[in-house]
Amino acid sequence: MLRHQIYEGTYDDALPAEGELAAEFFVSRNTIREALAVLKSEGLIDRGTKVGTHVAARKYDHGLDALVGLKETFKDYGDVRNEVRAVQRLSAPPAVARKLALEPGAQVVFIERLRYLADLPLSLDLTYLTPDIGEQVIEHPLESNDIFALIERVSGRRLGGAGLALEAVSADPHSAATLQVPAGSALLMAERLTSLDDGTPVDLEYIRMRGDRITMRGNLIRDT
Amino acid sequence: MLRHQIYEGTYDDALPAEGELAAEFFVSRNTIREALAVLKSEGLIDRGTKVGTHVAARKYDHGLDALVGLKETFKDYGDVRNEVRAVQRLSAPPAVARKLALEPGAQVVFIERLRYLADLPLSLDLTYLTPDIGEQVIEHPLESNDIFALIERVSGRRLGGAGLALEAVSADPHSAATLQVPAGSALLMAERLTSLDDGTPVDLEYIRMRGDRITMRGNLIRDT
Repeated sequence: MLRHQIYEGTYDDALPAEGELAAEFFVSRNTIREALAVLKSEGLIDRGTKVGTHVAARKYDHGLDALVGLKETFKDYGDVRNEVRAVQRLSAPPAVARKLALEPGAQVVFIERLRYLADLPLSLDLTYLTPDIGEQVIEHPLESNDIFALIERVSGRRLGGAGLALEAVSADPHSAATLQVPAGSALLMAERLTSLDDGTPVDLEYIRMRGDRITMRGNLIRDT
Repeated sequence: MLRHQIYEGTYDDALPAEGELAAEFFVSRNTIREALAVLKSEGLIDRGTKVGTHVAARKYDHGLDALVGLKETFKDYGDVRNEVRAVQRLSAPPAVARKLALEPGAQVVFIERLRYLADLPLSLDLTYLTPDIGEQVIEHPLESNDIFALIERVSGRRLGGAGLALEAVSADPHSAATLQVPAGSALLMAERLTSLDDGTPVDLEYIRMRGDRITMRGNLIRDT
């Protein structure tokens, strides 16, 4: 609950003293101390004996309801910058070919990007695009554009929707080093298959987001 | 990608040999070996020098689109059983009171449940209910019922919707021990505030799901 309060901006900077937090949550000071140690290990707060406890980092919301690129999502927070780590053509692995409705072994365009909000690495995105769309997308600057926007521009169509699968995974050593987190840190992992408005799948992405930086938010409706 | 293929049931039981997988994914056998080591450490596969690689566990899908309890969600997979670890009345911590639209310090009903699918611990749920609804809910057996169903029964109203926030966190020692995973394992953490169909918030839950057992799935629509 402390974590959530920090994310929500309950504390401008300094957190209350341990004793106050213990009273607020009806737990012992030891429990508060353990909780603060966890939050410190996550880089969310700084603590010092003389200076007390301070908020060190904030967390960013990413919508679960709408299909929006990272740059569009965070336009109020700062510039999203993409470090393009790979652009290549390759034969689609079987699972990729199946999801993109291509023949087994068909050529796809593969893009690996490390995405920053200002200087903060947020996510590592592996993208597979169908060849027709992909060849046109990679003619445009990928450093400063969302792929969603580029797909709409080169196809002359709107995106329709996407299927999303979200899970929590431990960062493998390569992802951890790239995202600048300790190996084994919790990552929010999204698989997202996006289609044009005529239903044609065009963009399959595997997105590893820093768990300490991104919250996915959305609304659920009770089916009757 | 191997992880996804396993979740999706691509392999009935045995995985292909390392050499075949290396060829399929266009990577070295070393890379395949490292990936399989990660999956083994997650308990997803078993490996042995004579017996090859086998699927050890499968993963369950939880919908992101609809507001449905765990028991309803998994009715085709097996019985959801709740180990009720705490039922108590307490003064709402400030953040809980605010979300449930109660006065600061108001009494709420708190329920802690460890939720199993058959013998597999899936999630640890901390639930805060408004006092009127909560007092009636806890008169019913909590071991075998979804709280959503009980709320609708005792209130005589339908649930309307919920706000959901999802993040990936590392398991603290208590959650890890309870969910039977190594400390530091990746958990999918949901905060879900559910309201009746008239918009009254009644149920605030903090749900820690085993990252190796649950995938949240949904569909996104492109806003125009």
